[in-house]
Amino acid sequence: MEVYFDNAATSYPKPPSVYEAINFTLQHVGANPGRGEHSLSQSANRIIFKARETIAEFFNIPNSRNIVFTSNGTEAINLALKGFLKPGDHGIISSMEHNSVVRPLNSLKNDGVNVTIVQCDKEGKLNPDYVFKEIKKNTRLIVLTHASNVTGTILPVEEIGEIAAKKGIPLLVDAAQTAGTIPIDVLRNNISLLACPGHKSLLGPQGTGFLYICEGFNLKPLIEGGTGSNSELSEQPDFLPDRFQSGTLNTPGIAGLKAGIEFINKKSIQTIKEHEDMLSKTFINKLKEINRVRIYGPLSIKEKTAVVSFNIKGKDSADIATALDEKYQIMVRVGLHCSPHAHKTIGTFPDGTIRVSFSIFNTVHEIDYFIDSLKVILN
Amino acid sequence: MEVYFDNAATSYPKPPSVYEAINFTLQHVGANPGRGEHSLSQSANRIIFKARETIAEFFNIPNSRNIVFTSNGTEAINLALKGFLKPGDHGIISSMEHNSVVRPLNSLKNDGVNVTIVQCDKEGKLNPDYVFKEIKKNTRLIVLTHASNVTGTILPVEEIGEIAAKKGIPLLVDAAQTAGTIPIDVLRNNISLLACPGHKSLLGPQGTGFLYICEGFNLKPLIEGGTGSNSELSEQPDFLPDRFQSGTLNTPGIAGLKAGIEFINKKSIQTIKEHEDMLSKTFINKLKEINRVRIYGPLSIKEKTAVVSFNIKGKDSADIATALDEKYQIMVRVGLHCSPHAHKTIGTFPDGTIRVSFSIFNTVHEIDYFIDSLKVILN
Repeated sequence: MEVYFDNAATSYPKPPSVYEAINFTLQHVGANPGRGEHSLSQSANRIIFKARETIAEFFNIPNSRNIVFTSNGTEAINLALKGFLKPGDHGIISSMEHNSVVRPLNSLKNDGVNVTIVQCDKEGKLNPDYVFKEIKKNTRLIVLTHASNVTGTILPVEEIGEIAAKKGIPLLVDAAQTAGTIPIDVLRNNISLLACPGHKSLLGPQGTGFLYICEGFNLKPLIEGGTGSNSELSEQPDFLPDRFQSGTLNTPGIAGLKAGIEFINKKSIQTIKEHEDMLSKTFINKLKEINRVRIYGPLSIKEKTAVVSFNIKGKDSADIATALDEKYQIMVRVGLHCSPHAHKTIGTFPDGTIRVSFSIFNTVHEIDYFIDSLKVILN
Repeated sequence: MEVYFDNAATSYPKPPSVYEAINFTLQHVGANPGRGEHSLSQSANRIIFKARETIAEFFNIPNSRNIVFTSNGTEAINLALKGFLKPGDHGIISSMEHNSVVRPLNSLKNDGVNVTIVQCDKEGKLNPDYVFKEIKKNTRLIVLTHASNVTGTILPVEEIGEIAAKKGIPLLVDAAQTAGTIPIDVLRNNISLLACPGHKSLLGPQGTGFLYICEGFNLKPLIEGGTGSNSELSEQPDFLPDRFQSGTLNTPGIAGLKAGIEFINKKSIQTIKEHEDMLSKTFINKLKEINRVRIYGPLSIKEKTAVVSFNIKGKDSADIATALDEKYQIMVRVGLHCSPHAHKTIGTFPDGTIRVSFSIFNTVHEIDYFIDSLKVILN
């Protein structure tokens, strides 16, 4: 039995319809979208357009042209941060952010951008008041992960969105761990910029992602070039999405992402969340019974996504993960998960944790197998 | 009969092995490369590594870690240009460059980078002496498309490479139209930076591309974030390829790209070029017989790739292309092909041309069908 518990990195498997959509696009559409008027190019265009519309509806984005496709969530975050922040600007982030936020901001610091990291508690929870207190005259952006990729802790996007709206400061949300399992409404949540990978809970393939840019928001493009539009000009087009989408898009990948979201819609995001919550609850309850286990982040299912980080006192986490993989074909992730600040926050830096993360396709039977295997390894 | 003559935009179809590699990776590997030690992650890692090795061998790149995967050729060019040129620097480009080169450079002009466009002749040919003459004390980069995407004209990469090497100026080659049909040897051709899309003549899927960065070359990353390496640091790693590869890679796409190059190796790049040359020659000879046709670029097969641009005097090119598509299911591209400077050079701006471009999978039978159909449309 092969058990994949690394869905917070990339969800696997995908729904069969995702494989089919990619394969069909590869074999029967093939052409370049937006690069000509012939019928295959138009078919490719329609795929891209429909994917955009599907995403817009899913996140309550008023106009689908405000969605810019990227190759992953990281590119979307980089476009938002590097395209928006200027020397002298101040940004606020939480201490649970991923390196996809921390590293570009660290780079921008050299260009004169100032960043405040607001401390979360030991469970990774963020007090919105702490964010409010850090707002300065030159605060131009608040950046928040919707949920930690280390502990699954859900951060208060709604409350921070209200603060941001009240203060007139744009909010960038990194939805890498929530898009597809927790409903996101960019309007209701006052989100100006939403960065999403396509290959996690949205169930699309690797090589996809997008940035939602709210209307009237002025970003500098990160990548410029052929857009199939305004080709006579040496300047990048000034309209969305072309301004931020240069070069050939990943049409088969985007077709797969569309199929992934359609699968979620068909099953309903609530059903998916309930299933994943049930798995997390079952897992935590069984894990708690193991001697010397230390689980990080909130234990209450309502406060977290289907990510559980833990260590066993006196045991090397990497050794446990290796044994799980080699002896039982159980795949988990161990280490810092590209989020050193989060591990500092929960007290697990620099060793990290064992991270288990579920998808709609995991089962209680797999959890039982995991727990049994872990017990054997520990004895 | 459906005829696809738009291979200069995206090659279609791909070899069956490309579809299979993508599908296999999606369904049986699935995990994130370089993001964990479990077996599926290692399998993904091996795919990426082997693809890198395949590319390195194909372009005579001494060390495969100097290959950075990107989502297309445009991203690779942007990384090279924006990562390297600084205020006060001077760059030289040809007048046949694509907007993927022109637009980022236009943006860099605002930051104080100076650019000289060296004029090519009416056939798109470049005299290396003209490049030599434009070299200044602050010339930091020469950028050259290996072949025009409008006329197929092959530019003198070897001669320019020699000039660049002699003068100690790095050469960035945009191999969008040649990688996979014309042998490229980064060492012999003195290429410091090689930008390639994966979805054209390399026969990989959309969503792939790469930049080769020669050893010791210092670029600033465009996109920063999680690399699965040095996760404890807020700084981007300083080693290749991780320094320039953040976020989850397009593993299935890269598996497809690897399969595409393996197909080329199996068939041999010479065989492919000969087949495409034969098609171009046949096409040009038949096209020349049509009344009032004007073919742009060199007519000698040795001087061009399998791209033919033409117009019919007194006829609207867009109308012809539409008729070819709607009545005969023949797909060509019409307009400026994202290369306004090239069209200005050959005298077809702003109306553009009808562009026909072949791949290894096209046939003489398809060309005959095209010519017959065109004749009916023109009568």
